[in-house]
Amino acid sequence: MPPPLQIHLPAWLDAETGHDSVTFATVEERMQYAIKLARLNVENGTGGPFGAAIFERLSGHLVAAGVNCVVGQNCSIAHAEMMAIATAQQKIGHYDLGAGDKDHELVTSVEPCAMCLGAVPWSGVSSIVCGARAEDAESIGFKEGAKPKDWIGELSTHGIETQRDVCRAAAVRVLTQYLESGGMLYNGTRDA
Amino acid sequence: MPPPLQIHLPAWLDAETGHDSVTFATVEERMQYAIKLARLNVENGTGGPFGAAIFERLSGHLVAAGVNCVVGQNCSIAHAEMMAIATAQQKIGHYDLGAGDKDHELVTSVEPCAMCLGAVPWSGVSSIVCGARAEDAESIGFKEGAKPKDWIGELSTHGIETQRDVCRAAAVRVLTQYLESGGMLYNGTRDA
Repeated sequence: MPPPLQIHLPAWLDAETGHDSVTFATVEERMQYAIKLARLNVENGTGGPFGAAIFERLSGHLVAAGVNCVVGQNCSIAHAEMMAIATAQQKIGHYDLGAGDKDHELVTSVEPCAMCLGAVPWSGVSSIVCGARAEDAESIGFKEGAKPKDWIGELSTHGIETQRDVCRAAAVRVLTQYLESGGMLYNGTRDA
Repeated sequence: MPPPLQIHLPAWLDAETGHDSVTFATVEERMQYAIKLARLNVENGTGGPFGAAIFERLSGHLVAAGVNCVVGQNCSIAHAEMMAIATAQQKIGHYDLGAGDKDHELVTSVEPCAMCLGAVPWSGVSSIVCGARAEDAESIGFKEGAKPKDWIGELSTHGIETQRDVCRAAAVRVLTQYLESGGMLYNGTRDA
């Protein structure tokens, strides 16, 4: 039996997600939570300045959270959105978050990179809410990759709604905080 | 401590990767290996008709392999390429396969979907070799997602070389085999 692929989220995240009945009524509250995770990830030195979470769209019940843990986990796919999506799916026991009777929402402190954007239709979420823009992440040195120009329109062809610029200024502050703290930019070697 | 995200590759894969000194000299041999994994995944009923592997580009030494295990692992991100990339990175102990003194090559039985394509620049590979085309996968019902029109040109801006249509007919045969065996198409609910 090959050893499983294991990706560990930071230990501090437990305290932020451990309550079974946490709900966040508005998209702004959900975004503030994602931004808080991004900030704690920077302050704890556990990864890049990115946080994300999956909520039940209607109730705002928190299903799962993720932060960027690429460097610490030696895993380039361990972006915040990917961790939130995969953890939520393990929690509900299905590869498709749209399979049950509840719609799910991905809330991410920064617009998804090309990989995470590609992951969204597969995930089964019905909506995505973004804080900072791709150009905000790029302005501190992270690459976002090549996305379709009208990526929001592309998502809508899958029935997925997108909201941008929710608490953008607060999300940008975490990016700036990361830069000022000397945080590592880990674009692939090819981009160095 | 939150439980780690765990994704298990099928047990049979061990026998296909367990030898420490397996090398595949040519891209065709590497592709035949990726196609074999895809076929075994179908025949063992362990996932979709997709196989991938990471090789040291010069020597052809096999570093890690992956197959699609989305349905069995309740994980929409568990595509063959993602599993091969993440497993290779855990093996070498770095999130960037370009960080050491060896170039790495991703060989995949079918052209990457939008998510896996987005993962390629982050992974640190210097080349990618594809068997079947995206339209071959779409012709049996899998969605590939919206990719930049000139995705090969986009990869080349990262210094990543792409080869297509390597053993394409053999790769297509596995797709057909999957379809004929009644294999499950697991596009997100939104696309149903």
